[in-house]
Amino acid sequence: MTSPLIDELTDAFRCLPGVGPKSAERMVMYLLERDRDGGLRLAERLASVMADVGHCRVCRDFTEAEVCGICANPARDRSLICVVESPANVLAIEQTGAYRGLYFVLMGHLSPIDGIGPDDLGVDQLVARAADDEVREVLLAVNPTVEGEATAHYITESMKALSVRLSRLAQGIPLGGDLEYVDGGTLLQAIVGRRQVSS
Amino acid sequence: MTSPLIDELTDAFRCLPGVGPKSAERMVMYLLERDRDGGLRLAERLASVMADVGHCRVCRDFTEAEVCGICANPARDRSLICVVESPANVLAIEQTGAYRGLYFVLMGHLSPIDGIGPDDLGVDQLVARAADDEVREVLLAVNPTVEGEATAHYITESMKALSVRLSRLAQGIPLGGDLEYVDGGTLLQAIVGRRQVSS
Repeated sequence: MTSPLIDELTDAFRCLPGVGPKSAERMVMYLLERDRDGGLRLAERLASVMADVGHCRVCRDFTEAEVCGICANPARDRSLICVVESPANVLAIEQTGAYRGLYFVLMGHLSPIDGIGPDDLGVDQLVARAADDEVREVLLAVNPTVEGEATAHYITESMKALSVRLSRLAQGIPLGGDLEYVDGGTLLQAIVGRRQVSS
Repeated sequence: MTSPLIDELTDAFRCLPGVGPKSAERMVMYLLERDRDGGLRLAERLASVMADVGHCRVCRDFTEAEVCGICANPARDRSLICVVESPANVLAIEQTGAYRGLYFVLMGHLSPIDGIGPDDLGVDQLVARAADDEVREVLLAVNPTVEGEATAHYITESMKALSVRLSRLAQGIPLGGDLEYVDGGTLLQAIVGRRQVSS
């Protein structure tokens, strides 16, 4: 390109996930040709989010306030804490509309190879919260991966001394799935965890 | 989301082409979790490009200067003007490295249905440039579409009185193509425009 400013912007767009040189070029051209207002609005909001959004003091989810909207909401059930790996998981659970408790966001999972230990995940903070008399149940909603399992196991061990109930998400066949295409491990879990429907 | 700032940013990302609600969410989460510096840099450059980039006075390409780098470059061949529909087309031609002339960017094509006429494309400005004694050839590199053809036809008519040579891009089979999968129209053009290789 003959404009250094445009070259720099194309380059900057490549920090986004899934955006290569061609898509970056297309985004820049699109904004310049058709949506400068949208581009300016995006720039403004991006700057303010990058600068102002931190972590909730209670649940570690992203928020620009000291305590996030969920933790501050008096209508939420304070006896239940759902432990997830990332803020995106909070979004996914909130979108079901079925969960009314609070959260705790680990911001990752145990991964010795990347140097991520229990301190980075705030496990002590979670244990301290779970020790509160108000809390009756902790739902470990980590991802069904090896690292997720290891993290869940570590948290379970750390909470052994507490009287709080620990639970995990149900495992089994997903809605709309066809048994033919469900992997063996999932099918095995579905059989092991089968439910009785009539006596 | 529980953060209004993050919600607004996710919404703002959707002004980019090919970005839906899920990708927008992924982009925001990625930047927040892993690349805040990249996000800030993107915001800064985006704001400056949206505010400062206008059109070159000579060729109408995007530039932050009054005259773009190509028009201002004394090493370019001033006797040749390549007419393209968009700045992205200039990029594509520049990337071949084979063209050393100047450009004229129409910023669209004739489209009565969208209310785009010759005035919007700057055809008068192009004709005035082509009338300069220095200019010997105008290459109409519009897209091979119905609108592109109509635009090329209009420009050809507008330049009838000038002594400048008009040319078009060669049409035929693309490199690496298989004749079996080339459409009939392209194959017809390739046969009509066949080249002699030996006498």
